[in-house]
This record gives sequence, C-alpha cells and structure tokens, in this order.
Amino acid sequence: MTIVPIAWSDRGIRILDQTRLPDEEAYVELSTIADVAESIVELRVRGAPLIGITAAMGLAAAAAQHVDQTGELTREWIARAALELERVRPTAVNLRWALDRMRRAAAEAFAAQRGSREIATALRTAAQRTWEMEADACLAIGQAGADLLEPGFTVLTHCNTGRLATGGLGTALAAVYVAHEQGKGVDVVATETRPLRQGARLTAWELSTAGVPCRVIVDGAAGSLMAAGEIDVVITGADRIAANGDTANKIGTYSLAVLAAAHRIPFYIAAPLSTVDCRLASGDDIPIEFRTPGELAAAPGAKVVNPAFDVTPVDLITAIVTDAGVLRPPLVDAIGRVCG
Amino acid sequence: MTIVPIAWSDRGIRILDQTRLPDEEAYVELSTIADVAESIVELRVRGAPLIGITAAMGLAAAAAQHVDQTGELTREWIARAALELERVRPTAVNLRWALDRMRRAAAEAFAAQRGSREIATALRTAAQRTWEMEADACLAIGQAGADLLEPGFTVLTHCNTGRLATGGLGTALAAVYVAHEQGKGVDVVATETRPLRQGARLTAWELSTAGVPCRVIVDGAAGSLMAAGEIDVVITGADRIAANGDTANKIGTYSLAVLAAAHRIPFYIAAPLSTVDCRLASGDDIPIEFRTPGELAAAPGAKVVNPAFDVTPVDLITAIVTDAGVLRPPLVDAIGRVCG
Repeated sequence: MTIVPIAWSDRGIRILDQTRLPDEEAYVELSTIADVAESIVELRVRGAPLIGITAAMGLAAAAAQHVDQTGELTREWIARAALELERVRPTAVNLRWALDRMRRAAAEAFAAQRGSREIATALRTAAQRTWEMEADACLAIGQAGADLLEPGFTVLTHCNTGRLATGGLGTALAAVYVAHEQGKGVDVVATETRPLRQGARLTAWELSTAGVPCRVIVDGAAGSLMAAGEIDVVITGADRIAANGDTANKIGTYSLAVLAAAHRIPFYIAAPLSTVDCRLASGDDIPIEFRTPGELAAAPGAKVVNPAFDVTPVDLITAIVTDAGVLRPPLVDAIGRVCG
Repeated sequence: MTIVPIAWSDRGIRILDQTRLPDEEAYVELSTIADVAESIVELRVRGAPLIGITAAMGLAAAAAQHVDQTGELTREWIARAALELERVRPTAVNLRWALDRMRRAAAEAFAAQRGSREIATALRTAAQRTWEMEADACLAIGQAGADLLEPGFTVLTHCNTGRLATGGLGTALAAVYVAHEQGKGVDVVATETRPLRQGARLTAWELSTAGVPCRVIVDGAAGSLMAAGEIDVVITGADRIAANGDTANKIGTYSLAVLAAAHRIPFYIAAPLSTVDCRLASGDDIPIEFRTPGELAAAPGAKVVNPAFDVTPVDLITAIVTDAGVLRPPLVDAIGRVCG
C-alpha cells in the first residue's frame, strides 16, 4: 500500500484527512482558498513540508477554479490568496517558502503578459515542481540519514515526519525507511506526541504499513528508555531552522534533545533546506503557534497552555540531515554557508 | 467543598471513583476483597498513600463483612486477603507497608486469643490509625514543603499528589496548599500526565476547587517552560524510595528531573517516610509496573510499551520533603538514618 497524502483532482486537490487516521482513510476535495486554509488550520494536512506543498497546490487549484468561474485572474486575487494561506499557521517556514515560489511564478507570468488561463497553468506547473522538489529532497535526506544508522539501531522519533508529513518519503522517517530497505534491521520508538497524538496515530500507522517494527510510548517515557540504554539515536523533523541552527519543531522536541544530551545519545534534525529561514538570526525570533486549549481537555477552572512547538538550541543538535547532505558542527557555520 | 476520596460506610468503605473525574463525582461502595482489589487495579483509587489506606480499610471492612456472614475470622483468611491486595499493584511500597501494619494488628489480636468480632474491630482500629497517620504525615509534609516555596513561585508538578492521592492534604500538593493558605501567591503548572491524565483531570480539578491558580500543559512542554524561565521549582510525589534515595514515581518524573537539573531548577520529592523501602539498596531493585497497552491507543500493528513508573536517581533530587522534615544531600546518608 502506498500512502498518498495529496493529489491533484478534477476540481482541485484531494487530501487524505489525517485527523481521521488511523481509524478511517477518508479523502477530502479542496477547491477554494477557504477550503485549503481550513484543512491546514484543522490539521487535516500537517507536517511542515506537506503544508507548503498543500498551500502551493491549493493556490494553483483554486486559481484555476477562479478562472473557470470568472474568466480572469488578477495580481490582487493571487496576492490576497497567498497571504490568506501564509497566515494560517505561523511556525513552519515551508508555508512561506512554497508561497513565495508561487508568487514568483505568478509575477513572471504577469510580466510576460500571459492570459488568465496561462497564468493558472503556470501556477499549477510551479506547484507541481515544488512538490517534486520536496519529494526529491526527502529521498536525499533519507539516503544521507540512513548512513547515520547502524544495523540494529533503535531510533526514537517524535511526531510524524514520514509520507504523511511530506510530499515524499519523509524527513526523519525517510532515514528509517531507507535503512529498512537496506536491510539494516532498524526499529523505531515513536513518542505518542500529545496533544494530537501524531506519533501514536500517524507514525505508528505509516511504519506498520511499511513493515518497520514500531513501539509507541507516552512522551514522558522517553527518558527512562534512554536511561535503560534502549535508544541508539534520536531523529526528528523541523518546522523552521534559524540562521544559527536553532530549530523549531513539535512541542516536546526540546525535552528530547536535553534528554539525549544527558544520555550521550546523538540527536539529529532531518529537514529539507527549504526549512531554513535565513532571515532569522536565532531561535528566539521563530514565532511559536499556540493552539486552542480544547486540544488538551482539562478540568473546568484550570487554564490550558498549548504551545504547538518549541525551540531546540543549536548546541544540543548533533547534526542536521538535509537534502544537501549532513550538516555538522559548527552548525552555525554550516547553516551560514547555506544562507550564503 | 472538601474532597473526600475514601470513607467508612455502612457495608464497607466508600470511595470516590477517580476514573470518572472531573466529569462526574461518583462514589462506589466496596465490601469484599475482590471489590477493593478491582478498585485499586482499575485506578478508581490511586496515589501511593491512598492505595495503602484503601487496602487497609478495605481489608478491615471485608473482614467485618466476613464475620457478619460466617461468624468467624481465621488467620488464613486474613493472610490470603492481605496477599491478594498486596499483589494488585507492584510499584508503590505503601500497599505493603499498610498491609504489614494490618498483619501485625491481626497477629496481636490472635495472640491475645480474641474472638472474631474483636479481631475485626482491631483491624478497623488499625486501618483507621493508618489513615490518620498518613493524614498527619501530609500536614507535616505540607508545612515542611511550604517553607521551600518563596512568594510568587510557580511550581511544576506531575501526576496527582493531593487530596485525591492521599488520606489527607497531599504530598507535593500539600506544600502548595499550605503555601497558598500562607498567602504566598504560588501557582501551579500541572503536566497532563499521560496516559491516564491525572494532571489534567485530577490535579487541575483539585487545585481549581481550592482556588489555587493552575495551568495545564502536555508533558512534552515542561522543557520549554523551564527554558523560558517560567518554572521556579519542581515537586513530585513518590511511589517508592530505595535505601539510597533513588525514587520511583509516575512515568515522566525522571525526564522532569533531568530537565530540572539542566535548567538548574530545584527538584524535590515529597512523600511520607512510609514510602521508603529500606529493603531495597537502589532504584534498580524497584519493580516497575507495566500496564495494559489499551491505556495508550496506537495504530493497529504497532506495539505499545506502557511503563507506569520510572526511577529518578538520587543525584538528580535536590531534597526529599517528608513528615520528618526535609532530607537534604547527601541523601543516601539521610535515608540511611531513616532506615537505621
């Protein structure tokens, strides 16, 4: 079975509704900007690379629908649509990165004085290319990451960073998939990842589907498994990497990095270079999304604080696995070269 | 409103069913050993001190019922009943401690050649005394613990260690309650405590009921709150303390202790001396309960590993707050004096 989290459809794009996994494999058709925005906000699609791809494909699909209905496509319509999508989730930079690519494609088409239908086609081509680039990046990350995994390694990972999070094989999980294909006999410990349980629901489902052995633990059990010597390496994805290497990722990642350091276990980040935000000097500048208290039901009267991400400082990161190879310390210099 | 998690009733004991909190305040009547065992296994009553008290009171109540029905009470009946209760949960030593007190009371009554009804009365007196001792211990812990909290402190705690976990004010939460009564304006960050959510369900409910400000976070957010300087002190309870000070407590406690050390935040354990198991040299000897995978729903195909407790090594513990005052490093010596 191949997991296809996103595809073009007759009237827009079709996404696998990840909020209903693993109980149900339900697909949703999106054809307007509002549809796409809702799906990203509600996490029907999630994962930093995949929300970038979804925004790009969704923008292209909605633009084509708009041309079908009105016969025209203006710079203003595209600018407004891109801005609406960019604002739906603040932390992952991939959303802005993908939409900037779409803005450039639109600007070129307008500059060449194309008609509305041609502009819509150019947007679709740009979105398709974004998707393919990200899928290629996954493969490169997987190959570079697999080299870091020795036979029999147990990999601890957090949240979901596989096919469901990207347009391809994954980021952190791509390393696991490639190592598995290489016959290295690796296995995975997946943290549940509260509050939305992406590890227990999505990572466990993906890995089982692919035949990779997987054990699920509560987030709080990571420390005791490390202390027991059961974890060889920690790999997670990233939502945004600042110019000094500080990395924002799913809430709980920072705790895992501190624990890995305390147990002298390598802690790797795996992400495409599209995740690097050269405009931000450090992790202090990364905006952290706080989500609705309702995601974490608590007794009446108590306040819920629900940050969706945290920042891991660069000095806790052993290396960053990218589509351009493994970046090693001093990471501030390595990222500096990426940012030029 | 006063929370009463356990009481004597006409036909046995009456417990507040904690699995149904905070949605519903439902009480359950227990009159047989099987009833009591089921309630402890299913966590209708939980918290190390409270399960000891429940076992003692449940044994006394079931013994009285048995006398009512059969007219006699044998050494064998009591031995079998105590063993059945002792075995239901392995990690908290309070269960054994409380049942050992009941065994001694029974042995004395048999040695004095009392009749069955008098023996049942002796058991009830011993159980009542156990409850009162634990309630007194809570007050002493609360007073000693409150002295460690400065005005305006934010206390991070894990699981539930208050009125619902003990026969009195609590252990870690007792320190908070006493400081709150002293007008110190402390507030609490409660970790959700997966998988059974004792923090979000029970601690948040207790604290709200008592008017203590409380914020609930996912377990994985503790690290980033510490990094942001939002936590002044961490206090948790204990299920068993070995003779060298290593401490077993709810899964996730060890991770919090590592994080506290990394952020130079004091990490305190609060527990009655009945939690110290002088027979065990170190935490390596503490039996850890693994509970059913069903507590942590994961995608089909994935295995769930569900340890209910972990062990925090003594060198990560700043001090242990007990009913005999605050034990300070070297804790191995301080506990050594307790163990004689």
